[in-house]
Amino acid sequence: MPDLQFHIFIGHTSLSKISEVSGAKLSDDSSGDFLITGVSALDKAESDELSFLDNVRYKDQFAVTKAGACFVHPDLAQYAPDGVRLLISETPYKAYALAAQYLYPETIPESDVSPKASVSDSASIGDGCVIEAGVVIEDGVKLGDCVWIGANSVIGRNVQIGSNVRIGASATISHCVIGDHSRLYPGVCVGQDGFGFAIDPKGHVKVPQLGRVIIGDHVEIGANTTIDRGAGPDTVIGDGSWIDNLVQIGHNVRIGKGCIIVSQVGISGSTVLDDFVAVGGQAGIAGHLHIGMGARIAAQSGIMRNIPAGEEQMGSPALPIRQHMKQVAFLRRLGKKG
Amino acid sequence: MPDLQFHIFIGHTSLSKISEVSGAKLSDDSSGDFLITGVSALDKAESDELSFLDNVRYKDQFAVTKAGACFVHPDLAQYAPDGVRLLISETPYKAYALAAQYLYPETIPESDVSPKASVSDSASIGDGCVIEAGVVIEDGVKLGDCVWIGANSVIGRNVQIGSNVRIGASATISHCVIGDHSRLYPGVCVGQDGFGFAIDPKGHVKVPQLGRVIIGDHVEIGANTTIDRGAGPDTVIGDGSWIDNLVQIGHNVRIGKGCIIVSQVGISGSTVLDDFVAVGGQAGIAGHLHIGMGARIAAQSGIMRNIPAGEEQMGSPALPIRQHMKQVAFLRRLGKKG
Amino acid sequence: MPDLQFHIFIGHTSLSKISEVSGAKLSDDSSGDFLITGVSALDKAESDELSFLDNVRYKDQFAVTKAGACFVHPDLAQYAPDGVRLLISETPYKAYALAAQYLYPETIPESDVSPKASVSDSASIGDGCVIEAGVVIEDGVKLGDCVWIGANSVIGRNVQIGSNVRIGASATISHCVIGDHSRLYPGVCVGQDGFGFAIDPKGHVKVPQLGRVIIGDHVEIGANTTIDRGAGPDTVIGDGSWIDNLVQIGHNVRIGKGCIIVSQVGISGSTVLDDFVAVGGQAGIAGHLHIGMGARIAAQSGIMRNIPAGEEQMGSPALPIRQHMKQVAFLRRLGKKG
Repeated sequence: MPDLQFHIFIGHTSLSKISEVSGAKLSDDSSGDFLITGVSALDKAESDELSFLDNVRYKDQFAVTKAGACFVHPDLAQYAPDGVRLLISETPYKAYALAAQYLYPETIPESDVSPKASVSDSASIGDGCVIEAGVVIEDGVKLGDCVWIGANSVIGRNVQIGSNVRIGASATISHCVIGDHSRLYPGVCVGQDGFGFAIDPKGHVKVPQLGRVIIGDHVEIGANTTIDRGAGPDTVIGDGSWIDNLVQIGHNVRIGKGCIIVSQVGISGSTVLDDFVAVGGQAGIAGHLHIGMGARIAAQSGIMRNIPAGEEQMGSPALPIRQHMKQVAFLRRLGKKG
Repeated sequence: MPDLQFHIFIGHTSLSKISEVSGAKLSDDSSGDFLITGVSALDKAESDELSFLDNVRYKDQFAVTKAGACFVHPDLAQYAPDGVRLLISETPYKAYALAAQYLYPETIPESDVSPKASVSDSASIGDGCVIEAGVVIEDGVKLGDCVWIGANSVIGRNVQIGSNVRIGASATISHCVIGDHSRLYPGVCVGQDGFGFAIDPKGHVKVPQLGRVIIGDHVEIGANTTIDRGAGPDTVIGDGSWIDNLVQIGHNVRIGKGCIIVSQVGISGSTVLDDFVAVGGQAGIAGHLHIGMGARIAAQSGIMRNIPAGEEQMGSPALPIRQHMKQVAFLRRLGKKG
Repeated sequence: MPDLQFHIFIGHTSLSKISEVSGAKLSDDSSGDFLITGVSALDKAESDELSFLDNVRYKDQFAVTKAGACFVHPDLAQYAPDGVRLLISETPYKAYALAAQYLYPETIPESDVSPKASVSDSASIGDGCVIEAGVVIEDGVKLGDCVWIGANSVIGRNVQIGSNVRIGASATISHCVIGDHSRLYPGVCVGQDGFGFAIDPKGHVKVPQLGRVIIGDHVEIGANTTIDRGAGPDTVIGDGSWIDNLVQIGHNVRIGKGCIIVSQVGISGSTVLDDFVAVGGQAGIAGHLHIGMGARIAAQSGIMRNIPAGEEQMGSPALPIRQHMKQVAFLRRLGKKG
């Protein structure tokens, strides 16, 4: 049961309403009037709480859960204990997500520009925006409607932000255009100079970084992640891509739509990721590469060559996953000998 | 000799006092009146300064040090040069630490709430707190006594902080409960949403992150480290655990007591570390794993399976250290051939 | 063509002027009066724009570029398409950098101390400084001339900064001395306590961190990078060294002149890098090591031993590059078998 000091609960809700908002189907229609008092994990849930099974790893917890109701894939429903009401879905985690969004709505504070913010007279602020204390908004900034800028963030000259965007506290954004419905988490640094210089024994010569960062719609960018602006071309983050914490995105990188970039990944300058690429945590991708649509890169991999669409790679230097696994198996045998 | 612009020195101090505060034993009681004028490294120390040998790697420096006095393990005392007064301890580094804490005390500024801070009327602030300029303290926050919040930090709604806690500058803390005597360094981001979503080709669906971050007593969290709040369960950092800079801790992670997590480590969601686990720099631990008590993970390792208590692992993918070393030796031989 | 909302263009400029500021030689003196209207990438450039070829990887783009003029190495000039005016240079990227610096000058805002900054009365501020809103400058700070401190940055007690230094937004600097012409990007944390403690089962004992961070002239330090102050000795960053984003530099590390440290590198405590060392992204260097002058460390390498001057190493654990390549080749053959 979430701590209601930190989360807002809409109140007791019937399973028929849960079914409606989540798209999951009740296995027993007669349970539609059952009231849910909150959500909880399988092993913690009380008899009036809602839970979910999305990972087969937790099947044993599911088999003994005391939850009042549970989202589950049709193939796993057979493991349900007696008494738990089932919400059947081909995508139980998505169904849970939709239910939880309904039960615990995020609220944007009342529209307000804090008197402790510093907002340039030449900035344009849409309706319903929240500008918290200590925020600095420089000349020429344009914010759409319902933008929420967290305390002490700094929005640089002429930055353009669409509507329903949320910027966490202590973020710094410059040289950047952001679409709608995107979220940048606390401490992100977007738009600073890329790491560009001509090496010279008398002193490296700075290459002016003359591009921007273009962030699409429905993008998420995690805490303390850094995205450098382009050197000439722009750095681009496509619609619906999710980037985790402490990720580094170099100048001129172009990330397509729907990509998933896990924490502490580094993507070097001028590399292109097509749509729906997934990159595991701490992986590194060298510069000037092309990663094809839907490619999957395992955690800690080191990518030094282009990857064809749909291919999964692992290792450092990375190989197609089947080849990598052969290496690992060979080395494991070595380790066990002697 | 520390730069007294940045550090406060208590003044000349006798070796008998040093012995008393550090628990180390003077090898020659007659040196108890000798006055120390500061601490310094073995190779820099003057004849009236105090140094220490804690790492056998520096034995040669010890053998020629000009220090006036030195902490040393009994087994290494034989290498001391003439003239240096010895403070013998089984734990010379700890003894040095205690002496240095005495000689160079940290000082908390005078209690004060800066008029340039923004403190909600509904926040509760204990005695002796320091709230620096630009700090934002939101509604319902509770601070114990002698809490020091560095400039421009943001403490979110209903966050609870114990006593004698120190938060560095530009930190952002939300959805969080912190015990006593803990320190969070500049730029930490604690309590933001975890990386939780249901993958969907039409647009990944956000899973509300309904937990908190619970930080125990005597915890240290390094600069620009990010700790996501739980997705439902809490993210937990146990008493006395030390976390270095730029570490990523995912949602629902539970870290036991006395753990040591070196810089740039990433720990994925829902993984559990029992007490006294040590994780070397840049190591990555996959999600949903269990790392047993006292396990040791070498730097840059990639952990994809549970680790039993007390086991030391290395490599990516990691193996028990003896097996890993065999692999490395085999590969080294290959490298030297031909 | 750079977006002039974010970048300032000096105006149409003749090739003879470009030749003068860049040191590149026009292949055809009669083109000296040709006017450039901006810079652009090879594949985007219009017939009145200036581009450059610095990486042979882009030779094919060069061969069909529509650019009006282009910097190029003499050896590659033969691939130029008809019509493009050539600026020949042995260091075409450096020549481009100098031209771009001339065409798109950085401008420092008009000297000003924001009334929303908090500047101690005991701080000394040079001529021509810019102190933006929300900046906190503590007691005893000394700034040279033309220092620009970005919004919401925090400059701790007695920090000394030379002239023509630029600190990005939301940076936190303490226990630090900075030379001239250096730049610290947004979110950097410099000078906080290093990760120093004596391990103790009853609770790790903090070792006071009694040193400083000394940053030379013409140094660049990337966004959200963390540099701990020394434990006793200082942490030192030599003149002209460039450090990328999200890098971790431990206490007592000494980095020489002209080094290049790419994003997400971690350098453990007390390690010394001589001049002109280059470290690839995500590499890790263990503590107490010595890396010789001009050594090169490949991305993701793990360095556990000293490296002689000039040597190139790769892998984790790292080997001289030739040996590492043999390992990789051997393993690749394994991967392809069966």
